[in-house]
Amino acid sequence: MTRRYFPPAEGGPPPLRVEVSRQVRFEEVDPLAIVWHGRYPSFFEDARVALCDRHGIGYLTCHENGFVTPIRKMHVDYFRPLRFHERFTIEAILHWTEAARIDMEFILRNEAREVTTTGYTVQMMLTTSASSTDDTILLIPPPYYRAFLDRWKSGALA
Amino acid sequence: MTRRYFPPAEGGPPPLRVEVSRQVRFEEVDPLAIVWHGRYPSFFEDARVALCDRHGIGYLTCHENGFVTPIRKMHVDYFRPLRFHERFTIEAILHWTEAARIDMEFILRNEAREVTTTGYTVQMMLTTSASSTDDTILLIPPPYYRAFLDRWKSGALA
Amino acid sequence: MTRRYFPPAEGGPPPLRVEVSRQVRFEEVDPLAIVWHGRYPSFFEDARVALCDRHGIGYLTCHENGFVTPIRKMHVDYFRPLRFHERFTIEAILHWTEAARIDMEFILRNEAREVTTTGYTVQMMLTTSASSTDDTILLIPPPYYRAFLDRWKSGALA
Amino acid sequence: MTRRYFPPAEGGPPPLRVEVSRQVRFEEVDPLAIVWHGRYPSFFEDARVALCDRHGIGYLTCHENGFVTPIRKMHVDYFRPLRFHERFTIEAILHWTEAARIDMEFILRNEAREVTTTGYTVQMMLTTSASSTDDTILLIPPPYYRAFLDRWKSGALA
Repeated sequence: MTRRYFPPAEGGPPPLRVEVSRQVRFEEVDPLAIVWHGRYPSFFEDARVALCDRHGIGYLTCHENGFVTPIRKMHVDYFRPLRFHERFTIEAILHWTEAARIDMEFILRNEAREVTTTGYTVQMMLTTSASSTDDTILLIPPPYYRAFLDRWKSGALA
Repeated sequence: MTRRYFPPAEGGPPPLRVEVSRQVRFEEVDPLAIVWHGRYPSFFEDARVALCDRHGIGYLTCHENGFVTPIRKMHVDYFRPLRFHERFTIEAILHWTEAARIDMEFILRNEAREVTTTGYTVQMMLTTSASSTDDTILLIPPPYYRAFLDRWKSGALA
Repeated sequence: MTRRYFPPAEGGPPPLRVEVSRQVRFEEVDPLAIVWHGRYPSFFEDARVALCDRHGIGYLTCHENGFVTPIRKMHVDYFRPLRFHERFTIEAILHWTEAARIDMEFILRNEAREVTTTGYTVQMMLTTSASSTDDTILLIPPPYYRAFLDRWKSGALA
Repeated sequence: MTRRYFPPAEGGPPPLRVEVSRQVRFEEVDPLAIVWHGRYPSFFEDARVALCDRHGIGYLTCHENGFVTPIRKMHVDYFRPLRFHERFTIEAILHWTEAARIDMEFILRNEAREVTTTGYTVQMMLTTSASSTDDTILLIPPPYYRAFLDRWKSGALA
């Protein structure tokens, strides 16, 4: 049921994966008794944060190293609803690229391990400056992120 | 800057368009001082509701007529940020299809009328029943929606 | 630093307590880099749901037993901010009353166990009916909730 | 039905009032088909922002003048539910005080002009600094806000 959102990266290392779990909150459910479609970016973010934290590329660390990674593109495919109180998992899958971007895929599964939702986000990289109007889009990853890519490629993160 | 999300519908009437305006709320802005990417589904929904209300195909009316139209797919492309207090417009563009689906495109513009964000949603149609587990996916639009399509095609909504 | 929101219930059993933990999400933080004040009802709800689930008086169970418990009153006192990524706990404290109401106090603590926020909610009890316009406010707890009160008073829940 | 949240300010000018209108969004409605109680801080904020903007004491202006006004206390009393698509108004009422605080009351009314919800917030004043850990609580209003108080007391804002 899942789609291939990113082409396989030839010569690159296998993707990095992290799975987190969450339970549907009352406030996330709409009058149809299912999770409102606009809540899923928050679900994706939980898994994104967990994966980035594990590998030292979280928001705060990147910011301290002079760059931020805003979302450039987001896509969600909804297959099955989630209901109040239901437990589900969110898997984030970071795909390899040498470009100054972060390609991440997401797979949500219910307690029966059925895929309920999939999607992806693409993040770009910007240098940070005192004035946000002077932020510059990076074409190649900054040294801090490049070092992470090198560790990944070397197999140290597997 | 905008993309063509839906192919032109040959032989179909031109799209229906509605534009609403909104102002960025404090709570919608993240620590980077821009609107958090996950708020945009709410922005899309404002324009969707306005367009559907204008043409009598809003959630409540559809529900009274025995069907609902959950989101099956959502996509957002982020080009420029929106900041606290900024006014912006959201245009919803309903594209023609005879299938049991709703293809809607969205264009956000800032006060300078620059495109900040675009995206689309695809909705499917389900019959409603007392038990939500008995909902059935519709392959052709129900009579109520078919009548709307006929008015649209006849030019009565232009 | 905490206040006494509810007077001690003379002759009643001690309060029931449940503590849950949570981590501040990026989307919950405002341009001042602290959690936006309007997110705290969601934090309270996490602890409320955990406490109610533990004792069989959660939303779904009550609904199946013919009543709902909407919020009638909410209060929050903010002492210290919470910041992005910070871990914190939310303690829900259910105070004894024989009336058809739910008096719950909340205490949030940061990782240093400092109290950051306190508050309370009061819920009333309504019978549910096919038409929500026929809902009736209950003056005494329904039998299902009365049985819970009896278990609590007997010490079985301590 | 409304309560007196703040004692009358003897010798002070009458309160300042602004009313805004809003329509219930689909995403704000819970499985009980009424607005989830935790959305009301957002409703209060819309009226707060409108009142503060009108009088030049909005967030951005205060920030430029070296202080911020975080929420110290929030209270909500829920009398009647709001339902999907319903239009309602939010009145913000700023009560006089010479202290370094902002005492604001809120009254929500449905289309029948029935009071559905009331509440209040208390804001304190902090100086802003490069490091948020050096923020200092103000005991008397800063000059910029004091000038606003003087205009208010003189009757210029009536």
